[in-house]
Amino acid sequence: MMREKEERTLSVSVEISARHVHLCQKDVEILFGVGHRLANKRILSQPGQYAAREAVSLIGSRGRIDGVCVLGPTRAETQVEISMTDGYHLGVDPPVCESGNLRGSSGITLKGSAGTVELTKGVICAERHIHMLPATAEYWGLHDGQYVQLHVGGVRGLIFGQVRIRVSPGSSVKPVLHIDTDEGNAAGIVTGNVGVVVWGD
Amino acid sequence: MMREKEERTLSVSVEISARHVHLCQKDVEILFGVGHRLANKRILSQPGQYAAREAVSLIGSRGRIDGVCVLGPTRAETQVEISMTDGYHLGVDPPVCESGNLRGSSGITLKGSAGTVELTKGVICAERHIHMLPATAEYWGLHDGQYVQLHVGGVRGLIFGQVRIRVSPGSSVKPVLHIDTDEGNAAGIVTGNVGVVVWGD
Repeated sequence: MMREKEERTLSVSVEISARHVHLCQKDVEILFGVGHRLANKRILSQPGQYAAREAVSLIGSRGRIDGVCVLGPTRAETQVEISMTDGYHLGVDPPVCESGNLRGSSGITLKGSAGTVELTKGVICAERHIHMLPATAEYWGLHDGQYVQLHVGGVRGLIFGQVRIRVSPGSSVKPVLHIDTDEGNAAGIVTGNVGVVVWGD
Repeated sequence: MMREKEERTLSVSVEISARHVHLCQKDVEILFGVGHRLANKRILSQPGQYAAREAVSLIGSRGRIDGVCVLGPTRAETQVEISMTDGYHLGVDPPVCESGNLRGSSGITLKGSAGTVELTKGVICAERHIHMLPATAEYWGLHDGQYVQLHVGGVRGLIFGQVRIRVSPGSSVKPVLHIDTDEGNAAGIVTGNVGVVVWGD
């Protein structure tokens, strides 16, 4: 019985994602100059991903946020991930959706050291999600795209619903929960804390 | 059976509290002038409480937020309620605690139209809570100070743990959940949405 219980306890490390930008190479060159390549400043938990040295300003109808980190490598489409609190400050109202799904996303202006990009779409609040390897998903009986609940304890303890499982051979070996700063603050947790996946309900 | 189920469904209206300040009369007079009295701009859900016309600036070691609403009436002690996101921007790290419990709370500078107050304590992240009348609490078998869980649905659905029940004869007739902007944004909800109290677990 104890063994069964242990096997049903999937602990996940928490990582809080602050506002950030993914850029296509075309936008990198508009923002930072022709031929510019992103420079790796710090590697992230997901293999191949890094925080770049480059930063941009986000300029909305109501406000502006400077010094927003660009993540690399470049992608096919530029995507801006902000919290709803950021959205209120900037004057944009982005949908909550999975990274890469930019239908219905909001526009914004990006400003870099060499130029400006007017996005008509690409701003989202990222759906909370857990990255894991196919082998991990198989072990736990999970599949890509499904939702689970995740419990975190503490003075602001809560159970996040609608946590998307994202299975990829490119994932970190250790499963990682990605939530934004509003979600981290609402739960009173910081990067490095641990949550537990709850099945059922 | 249906009746029993209905009776165990306590729905609660959600109200999102943006950053705000409660002032003692002494601080009102330092910030806005000798003999100044707060002016009622808009009544709030809890009887006798109102948003005042007066606003202050919060000035921390890292940043500043202008136009922060003062709530009335005055209280015995000045208290500043901010979100953790605000705290990060300002450079203060307030504890999560119940309104009125200022032990261990943070300091900050308040600036009004006539003067400045240097608080050495008084800044908190308010503990999430539900206001209700004694009759309501009795009907539902709840008591002042206890914790319940509260479920909200939707694209960012979650179950808040550690929701404090606050019973007072001065409460609104309709039970009301008070959470801050981080918590509202993390749950994807706005003022006027409804949550359901969950017993047990």
